[in-house]
Amino acid sequence: MDIIVLRPGVTDKEIRHVVKKLGNKGFKVQISKGTERTLIGVIGDTSKVTEEEISAFEVMSGVEKIHRIIKPFKLSSRDFQAKNTLIKVGKHTIGGKKIHVIAGPCAVENMTTLLKIAKEVKKSGATFIRGGAFKPRTSPYSFQGLGEKGLKILAKTREETGLPVVTELMDPRDIDVIMKYADVIQIGTRNMQNFRLLQEVGSHDKPILLKRGLSATIKELLMAAEYILSRGNNKVILCERGIRTFETATRNTLDLNAVPVLKKLTHLPVIVDPSHGVGKWDLVAPMAKASIAAGADGLMIEVHTNPEEALSDGEQSLKPAKFKTLMKELKAIAKVVGREI
Amino acid sequence: MDIIVLRPGVTDKEIRHVVKKLGNKGFKVQISKGTERTLIGVIGDTSKVTEEEISAFEVMSGVEKIHRIIKPFKLSSRDFQAKNTLIKVGKHTIGGKKIHVIAGPCAVENMTTLLKIAKEVKKSGATFIRGGAFKPRTSPYSFQGLGEKGLKILAKTREETGLPVVTELMDPRDIDVIMKYADVIQIGTRNMQNFRLLQEVGSHDKPILLKRGLSATIKELLMAAEYILSRGNNKVILCERGIRTFETATRNTLDLNAVPVLKKLTHLPVIVDPSHGVGKWDLVAPMAKASIAAGADGLMIEVHTNPEEALSDGEQSLKPAKFKTLMKELKAIAKVVGREI
Amino acid sequence: MDIIVLRPGVTDKEIRHVVKKLGNKGFKVQISKGTERTLIGVIGDTSKVTEEEISAFEVMSGVEKIHRIIKPFKLSSRDFQAKNTLIKVGKHTIGGKKIHVIAGPCAVENMTTLLKIAKEVKKSGATFIRGGAFKPRTSPYSFQGLGEKGLKILAKTREETGLPVVTELMDPRDIDVIMKYADVIQIGTRNMQNFRLLQEVGSHDKPILLKRGLSATIKELLMAAEYILSRGNNKVILCERGIRTFETATRNTLDLNAVPVLKKLTHLPVIVDPSHGVGKWDLVAPMAKASIAAGADGLMIEVHTNPEEALSDGEQSLKPAKFKTLMKELKAIAKVVGREI
Amino acid sequence: MDIIVLRPGVTDKEIRHVVKKLGNKGFKVQISKGTERTLIGVIGDTSKVTEEEISAFEVMSGVEKIHRIIKPFKLSSRDFQAKNTLIKVGKHTIGGKKIHVIAGPCAVENMTTLLKIAKEVKKSGATFIRGGAFKPRTSPYSFQGLGEKGLKILAKTREETGLPVVTELMDPRDIDVIMKYADVIQIGTRNMQNFRLLQEVGSHDKPILLKRGLSATIKELLMAAEYILSRGNNKVILCERGIRTFETATRNTLDLNAVPVLKKLTHLPVIVDPSHGVGKWDLVAPMAKASIAAGADGLMIEVHTNPEEALSDGEQSLKPAKFKTLMKELKAIAKVVGREI
Repeated sequence: MDIIVLRPGVTDKEIRHVVKKLGNKGFKVQISKGTERTLIGVIGDTSKVTEEEISAFEVMSGVEKIHRIIKPFKLSSRDFQAKNTLIKVGKHTIGGKKIHVIAGPCAVENMTTLLKIAKEVKKSGATFIRGGAFKPRTSPYSFQGLGEKGLKILAKTREETGLPVVTELMDPRDIDVIMKYADVIQIGTRNMQNFRLLQEVGSHDKPILLKRGLSATIKELLMAAEYILSRGNNKVILCERGIRTFETATRNTLDLNAVPVLKKLTHLPVIVDPSHGVGKWDLVAPMAKASIAAGADGLMIEVHTNPEEALSDGEQSLKPAKFKTLMKELKAIAKVVGREI
Repeated sequence: MDIIVLRPGVTDKEIRHVVKKLGNKGFKVQISKGTERTLIGVIGDTSKVTEEEISAFEVMSGVEKIHRIIKPFKLSSRDFQAKNTLIKVGKHTIGGKKIHVIAGPCAVENMTTLLKIAKEVKKSGATFIRGGAFKPRTSPYSFQGLGEKGLKILAKTREETGLPVVTELMDPRDIDVIMKYADVIQIGTRNMQNFRLLQEVGSHDKPILLKRGLSATIKELLMAAEYILSRGNNKVILCERGIRTFETATRNTLDLNAVPVLKKLTHLPVIVDPSHGVGKWDLVAPMAKASIAAGADGLMIEVHTNPEEALSDGEQSLKPAKFKTLMKELKAIAKVVGREI
Repeated sequence: MDIIVLRPGVTDKEIRHVVKKLGNKGFKVQISKGTERTLIGVIGDTSKVTEEEISAFEVMSGVEKIHRIIKPFKLSSRDFQAKNTLIKVGKHTIGGKKIHVIAGPCAVENMTTLLKIAKEVKKSGATFIRGGAFKPRTSPYSFQGLGEKGLKILAKTREETGLPVVTELMDPRDIDVIMKYADVIQIGTRNMQNFRLLQEVGSHDKPILLKRGLSATIKELLMAAEYILSRGNNKVILCERGIRTFETATRNTLDLNAVPVLKKLTHLPVIVDPSHGVGKWDLVAPMAKASIAAGADGLMIEVHTNPEEALSDGEQSLKPAKFKTLMKELKAIAKVVGREI
Repeated sequence: MDIIVLRPGVTDKEIRHVVKKLGNKGFKVQISKGTERTLIGVIGDTSKVTEEEISAFEVMSGVEKIHRIIKPFKLSSRDFQAKNTLIKVGKHTIGGKKIHVIAGPCAVENMTTLLKIAKEVKKSGATFIRGGAFKPRTSPYSFQGLGEKGLKILAKTREETGLPVVTELMDPRDIDVIMKYADVIQIGTRNMQNFRLLQEVGSHDKPILLKRGLSATIKELLMAAEYILSRGNNKVILCERGIRTFETATRNTLDLNAVPVLKKLTHLPVIVDPSHGVGKWDLVAPMAKASIAAGADGLMIEVHTNPEEALSDGEQSLKPAKFKTLMKELKAIAKVVGREI
């Protein structure tokens, strides 16, 4: 259902024209003449109507504005499914009482380093290993990742530690190779509206970790999830990781408000990546604790044994000892909010 | 100390001109000729130099850019004072181990309602009562507050409950009347850069609760505090209350990142107002918990016994029962992060 | 007229409660049961209802959201007055066919400099002199203006050149002194929502130049104008001067889109200040030309004979020779869009 | 050359450690002990050093901050090439004195409509036809474009009218089919940081129209161009099309400031798309005029013979008659700024 607001002085002819167009699309109308404006209520299920179709009415003579009443996302909405979606990955379940922590370096660098990090984070309670083999980098002159070699290192690390692997897919042409090695496929911030990539992962059944775009609204994040869900893959984990604002004291502005807002709007699990959100290792711990307090279902944290030598994002990585301390505090906070880690 | 970056192809004459101007202001220089740019290092205490004086160098022929090395705020900086500032209000101390919760309605409406709310929030553990007598409203047609009558109601409520009063000053002409009734003077978001108001409260010795402007950077918040400190009043409490971003799912984007960033940069206490930050009562509790987890020294929360009838901001006020539940959870989280409420 | 959207599963009892509350406020309702949501249309003139009163309905059980149909500003709206407001200042009229250029230094420094600048800009076609006597500065350590001495210099300059004076009021306590010397009173960016100051200038009859706040929406700018208009002063000139965004290549993001949007929404004149908008003198000329092409009624441009020595904003000031060249181009563009300078 | 700012109280051991690391990377240093901070100047060509390598220094003990002196983009910079890049497309040259206008519908719908629009816009002076065959849509339920069928319609239209074709590539897997039909390949806003797509088009030699991302800084736009240039394709046309800000009165905030800023920083041509920038047809004309006044090298404008029936973006399309009037005004403004259309 939508409301069409007409301009002051709209003519009967103009109204009839709008009503006829609506009729052509199968809608009934209800006209309300108010003291200052006349409104047309569009009756019927406008949720099948695209934003574009509706907005085309905005160019019609006599029309001032359209108010959409129905949310544009459906499958990801709590209206559609009230119960939390639980996503199984091996023996783990994401979205339930247990909070999961995905930890590891930004980029996979070599077997020795990754394995060392994986063992450390596992000991502290992390349940997934992360690491990029394909890296989206702002500069063409930056390290672009090891590619399939990196994926093999991740798989080997999983074999040794039992930790399932979360890693990023950047290009639909890499889907087969990623499917071979990943347990959870990450869609990065810069690809949140790479619709072809979303359609591609929507056609497979691996869990998808979908990161919010730098300037994506919460509604757009849910619309991006809708792309995946509408293709049949309902294993989507949403990830808040910082938005772009005017503030430059932090790399991005981690928007923790998104956590309770998303938990209200959608049944999908919501996790937080404070490392990218703030971009400085000494701000990661407070924001990780705040994420759990705000109701997040999980965390994604960059950990590196030697941040000074990291090939990427060293400045936002925790050392294993700091990570261990943080995990203890996170456990205590999880308990306060009725969860466990 | 500052660095002046010169354009490629800068002439010796241009360099001499810049150096001479710096000399006139009492600075020595150190020139470094790099492969791509020549730099002038400005030696001496440039912290006394204003942004304007330095930026005037940017118009000089041959100059490309100025990099300022020193932070523009001084008295509020941890470099200036490493130890946390403790602010005494009656028997309470803000900025120490104990976290304080300031609660109450957005606007003072009448004696009965305010007293009822005050008693409720005190029972749950709040240590200050808040309520606006002078209200900054976006619309001239909105309720503008009771003025001095409202202040009297606040004072009476303090008498009955023992809770010190936090209330807003909007106009330098109201300073005397506010001084008579308030224990902590609030400078609101829209007045964070009302420099005359800042100078006015800087000349008195009441504690000031300085709210971050909607589009103020953390640096600008500290510069606003500097206005107050530089006049001799060092009792400034900073308050994060949401910034303006592109996201419209929440009233503002509560920027909890500001909490650990501020705690690192300044010795002043930092509190959070989640009610204005999110603008919806059901998001207040998770963000209040997140604030404490992130390291805040206090909270400011809107509570109303009858939000439906509130004259202002009803949609973001908690009812006393919800506030009570929240306070219990806050106590548990405070303990995890080594604090108490 | 407003639309109240009810939650799915709303009960009849909840609906009756909302309807009763509306009845208490004197409104009739029209209920539409759609396939996915039930709506309540609020009939009657809700424009007298404040945002707060309406938003209080959002906390009511069963209510999901309120859509406001009527714009919250009235007196400043084209619905209220279709014809452009013409503002007379001496022999000049702002808001008509002629485009006015207000030029001068950021701050008044001394008689000699101001007079020299005034003569230069007048020769090039500027019709008003600008210059701050009271300066809002981010840092308490920056030059704060000459105060009344500066106003006297402005008045003297007017006497010599015939150019009317535009200067800023920062504090309601300075209203009398400003009234004595200014022809147009400027309300600065940081005071756009200093509601007491708006009320103060609304009670006098001098023309007001109201600058858009750094993070103010166009709607909020019109609400700020409404404060002045609702007190009886309808001589308000709106000024776009750059908003705060994530982009740091320019000091602010001059939002020229605001020009055609405002011209559509309001009958008040709209001018642009490209100097503050971009913050670099070499970007001022292209943006000044763009402003006129976009439909602005005037410009405010910083000009200084010696930007290197300016006490404020030297980096964004044009030298008189550049200003002269710019004025020639502006005249040609004005002609293309059916205006004159 | 970069500057490393050390913390107050940094030890000699910490300094030696940083200096050693720099030495390992082949850099010499120059240490300046100031009154408040010690700085390390890094001597040598740091432009080959990635942001990541340098930022890794930020985690080192004793380091406070890094100031980068050199711009991170090279090939696209005016430092690298002072003269404007001229891009030949058939008989046209983009980036020279002549301003080009690319016009057409948002999406290709059918042969009849496109041809009709193409003939109309050509008559008014447009020199390129635009139309999407692959459409990035926020909702999976919106029209996604005709695919290759759309490309064939574009090619047929070029045959009939002689207008070269600008159309979007969304997926690296479509590169071959796009190469067959397009004269200029558009990279859309949501793909500005789809680095694989950038590398793909960098390996071909068709001109690329690179649209600025919704939340991309000007620097990031140039870094995205760098991806294409660094692969050997130097025919990149930059396009400003609106950024995301807090303002909701327009679909996006068209950032015309970017035009003079880019013309200063880069030798690549800069065009503007006011249709997407503002999202309302009645704001397109003023912003198109403003774009030319600000110094743009071209425009991209949505035109549709029947906006009410457009399958996409009808609300922001001009009808041919309005486009014709606009073109006349644009010609007059172009002349004022020393250009022609």
